[in-house]
Amino acid sequence: MHFADDLIDAIRDKGSPACVGIDPMFDMFPPELRSSTPADDPRRVLDACFSFVMDVLKIVAPLVPVVKFQSAYFEQFRHEGVEAYFALIREAKDLGLMVIGDAKRGDIGSTSAAYAAGHLQDFPADDDEFATADALTINPMLGIDSIEPFVSESDELGKGLFVLVRTSNPGSADFQDVKLADGRTWSELLADTLHQRVVKHRVGASGYSSIGVVVGATQVHTIESMRKRLPNSIFLLPGYGTQGATAAMTRAAFDSRGLGAIVSASRSILYPKRAPGEDWRSAIERATITLRNELANVIAG
Amino acid sequence: MHFADDLIDAIRDKGSPACVGIDPMFDMFPPELRSSTPADDPRRVLDACFSFVMDVLKIVAPLVPVVKFQSAYFEQFRHEGVEAYFALIREAKDLGLMVIGDAKRGDIGSTSAAYAAGHLQDFPADDDEFATADALTINPMLGIDSIEPFVSESDELGKGLFVLVRTSNPGSADFQDVKLADGRTWSELLADTLHQRVVKHRVGASGYSSIGVVVGATQVHTIESMRKRLPNSIFLLPGYGTQGATAAMTRAAFDSRGLGAIVSASRSILYPKRAPGEDWRSAIERATITLRNELANVIAG
Repeated sequence: MHFADDLIDAIRDKGSPACVGIDPMFDMFPPELRSSTPADDPRRVLDACFSFVMDVLKIVAPLVPVVKFQSAYFEQFRHEGVEAYFALIREAKDLGLMVIGDAKRGDIGSTSAAYAAGHLQDFPADDDEFATADALTINPMLGIDSIEPFVSESDELGKGLFVLVRTSNPGSADFQDVKLADGRTWSELLADTLHQRVVKHRVGASGYSSIGVVVGATQVHTIESMRKRLPNSIFLLPGYGTQGATAAMTRAAFDSRGLGAIVSASRSILYPKRAPGEDWRSAIERATITLRNELANVIAG
Repeated sequence: MHFADDLIDAIRDKGSPACVGIDPMFDMFPPELRSSTPADDPRRVLDACFSFVMDVLKIVAPLVPVVKFQSAYFEQFRHEGVEAYFALIREAKDLGLMVIGDAKRGDIGSTSAAYAAGHLQDFPADDDEFATADALTINPMLGIDSIEPFVSESDELGKGLFVLVRTSNPGSADFQDVKLADGRTWSELLADTLHQRVVKHRVGASGYSSIGVVVGATQVHTIESMRKRLPNSIFLLPGYGTQGATAAMTRAAFDSRGLGAIVSASRSILYPKRAPGEDWRSAIERATITLRNELANVIAG
């Protein structure tokens, strides 16, 4: 078992590198689901989120290889939301989807090890209604020793990680783009250090490492620079659609075989504009197919 | 309500800036607690952690103003652990303790807002067996816009934040100590930016801001540099005891009134060396009193 090889296989099977971001945001739900749920009752709202995500998973499972669960939208509902998170990951896996847990954890030493255990180790056999993700997003700010416990755990389990390297929010420039004395940006230092110390030692048969990276697509040259520095990392490109990544930027993340990246879209898939009279499930399916087609054009182009 | 003013009041009431880190690590439990719990049964281990933390809270409540719950050691037990986290925070508050949630969250936009809601907003009135922390630790790597939703939420609720600025692990040098083109380290840029854009606009009657920082005490000059750059932030100094911070380093974080910092110790309090025949509860009480005395000497010295 090797996470990157498994993911590349899944991308080939489904014929697309599209990843659907599971961001249950009740305020953006189809009006017919919102109107039947009292917005001031957190348990009813969580129930609505649970059944919405179940439906979304069933719609997208034939169309994409992987989904990305955003932990924050579950933690918002505290422990009951976390329970839903693990139960829905189980559903996603039963539908044949790979799952990324987008929790952006990061701490030091045994604390990182506890996060890694909680988010990556299997549930006990008698808790088989729950499952953990195949890969976790992590925050590397605290240093390479802070991510090592995550790396050890994912190595042992045949799972993967996506390390935050450069995000796509406007404020990412504040601390990630600053120039170092040696001429690199801080994110470039991060990329080089990750590649040398972690990524390149975990390359599978696919040519890709079990340690991927999150790189926000905001400028073509950023993606190109990161691709050179991290030739063996699968790029998780968030924010396609809503956050405005373009085809040219996205293309720079893929190799000549059209592999090496997954492109995540959340709101543009889950909460699409609907044609007059269109069922919300059909709109989600249509939006997913549109994403598939757009990415096929990007990769071919 | 202003978090820093409340915390300074609590420090004065209890006569100490000591903070006990609530890190339930079953492997380090007193042997008499370990031997009665099957280590391979996660629910029994969680139950043991719950009752251990309950006892610890009762022992330390008369002696310290604040406790810091490490989220990872609860998330290790998945949703049931998260339920215990919020239930034990309720217990801590009922015992008159202030509570910091050490979850080191960080993301962008509405995702940060969801984390802030989950970790800081009150539970509904009919869920009064649970409570959220008075302050949360956050990771600022993604930029100032990534922390703004946390700041807005804590402003609205009269709560606080502790922003990671410089950690104390050996690997902290990898990305935090790197020199920028302008001569500052990356952490110094972070400190200056935080002070200007966030911290200084939220100073209470105590002279301190509701936005504190986490600064690992590893070198005196680091603490001194950070104190100059962040004159209005309460410093949360982790790793006292086990991680080897010395008195001189710690002293540099305090102002001339002996205020402005809290010093967190976890393992040295929860899992102290016991005198022959000594009860584990007495050992924890003794370790807490030792920490109080040491810090009193540091501040006076």
